[in-house]
Amino acid sequence: MTGRGVDAVRRNGSGRYYRMNAQLIPVPEERQSQRERRVPRHIGFIPDGNRRWALQHGLAKEQGYASGIAPGVALFEACKVLGIEEVSVFGFTQDNTRRPTVQAQQFRAACVVFAQEISRRGAALLVLGDERSTQFPVELAGFRTRQGKGIKVNFLVNYGWEWDLDGLKEGGLRSADVSRLDLIVRWGGGRRLSGFLPVQSVYADIFVLDALWPDFEPQHLDTALAWLGQQDRTLGG
Amino acid sequence: MTGRGVDAVRRNGSGRYYRMNAQLIPVPEERQSQRERRVPRHIGFIPDGNRRWALQHGLAKEQGYASGIAPGVALFEACKVLGIEEVSVFGFTQDNTRRPTVQAQQFRAACVVFAQEISRRGAALLVLGDERSTQFPVELAGFRTRQGKGIKVNFLVNYGWEWDLDGLKEGGLRSADVSRLDLIVRWGGGRRLSGFLPVQSVYADIFVLDALWPDFEPQHLDTALAWLGQQDRTLGG
Repeated sequence: MTGRGVDAVRRNGSGRYYRMNAQLIPVPEERQSQRERRVPRHIGFIPDGNRRWALQHGLAKEQGYASGIAPGVALFEACKVLGIEEVSVFGFTQDNTRRPTVQAQQFRAACVVFAQEISRRGAALLVLGDERSTQFPVELAGFRTRQGKGIKVNFLVNYGWEWDLDGLKEGGLRSADVSRLDLIVRWGGGRRLSGFLPVQSVYADIFVLDALWPDFEPQHLDTALAWLGQQDRTLGG
Repeated sequence: MTGRGVDAVRRNGSGRYYRMNAQLIPVPEERQSQRERRVPRHIGFIPDGNRRWALQHGLAKEQGYASGIAPGVALFEACKVLGIEEVSVFGFTQDNTRRPTVQAQQFRAACVVFAQEISRRGAALLVLGDERSTQFPVELAGFRTRQGKGIKVNFLVNYGWEWDLDGLKEGGLRSADVSRLDLIVRWGGGRRLSGFLPVQSVYADIFVLDALWPDFEPQHLDTALAWLGQQDRTLGG
């Protein structure tokens, strides 16, 4: 909420206040609902449900991944419009590579197309995952260090939570360039993290949509942000 | 699910099968709904909402913690009856100790009473947290290594996710004795982990109850287990 002249929003009895120039100023009722739909700094996205979507549409499971690309680009553009500073997106994990080869080929290909497209659209793109594996697409090797300016996108490709944490044994997380998550939005109904950035997720609010990822609509993001505004976030304090 | 003569339950087309003595045996329809309410090996519990409960009952916030002890004992007994092998329970975190002193005193005291009571009732109790701090209750120092036989209880007291992970720099997680979680049940409506065992939580299904923790009823656990039975658990594969 910094950079908008507002340092903090406090609850105080039934009303709400914000602090500006060291003064507590009540938030008018009509603005509170607007404030509730606050914009988090960093959102994580778990776009699950491609294979179920494919089966629902009479396709082979592996044909679902390509249908997740355009929704990803639309989500990226929606985040830009909202002024989100940083997003992290689950591409695929080292666990996922145990799936049938034809599926792995398709989700790798979809990740390459998505990454190249958002890079072209001005993302400051970091691809995060174990590049010392044939599962890591060579086309994305250049993004293992962040490239570009603009909205930060951390794209998890052949990512593994153990691979990430093992970095601690050598001095730091392999995801050290990824900041703490405020919100995680998951499609496909699963109420779990599935190894998504365990350190950055520790305080994140988790919003789950039953809709399958290829059925993404921009309204999903609005709903998640409205929900986030209603959560009481204390970071344990 | 081991120890019951059943090694695995497989989905196979529309029917389900279990393996016994190396044979696949179909699960009768009427037993499938019962099997759906499967018993996970390891459940985590986040008993949140003590302070809100106190305010609802005209008490000072810090008076809520003592009301969380009896529910904890009831939950422990319910887990024993169900044959759960291991449970992990959020007592308090290093983050929580930033709260007002009167609250910290009360949640520390409640944790001591709870731990001593479940130990008396036959828990194999491990208290997990930074004992090199005045926030760690001296009464629980003897449980920093697991004491007793029976259902394993990992009780997080002055626990911190950073404290836990920092162990990796010295060879291993400080929670190395805690196994992977199958299910996490949280009371109080918060859709987040709040730093609860980040490594063991990576694949856990997360079930959230809006009820505040002191309003615990054994039926909450039944509901969570029934819900878990409906989840499709792939561990990323």
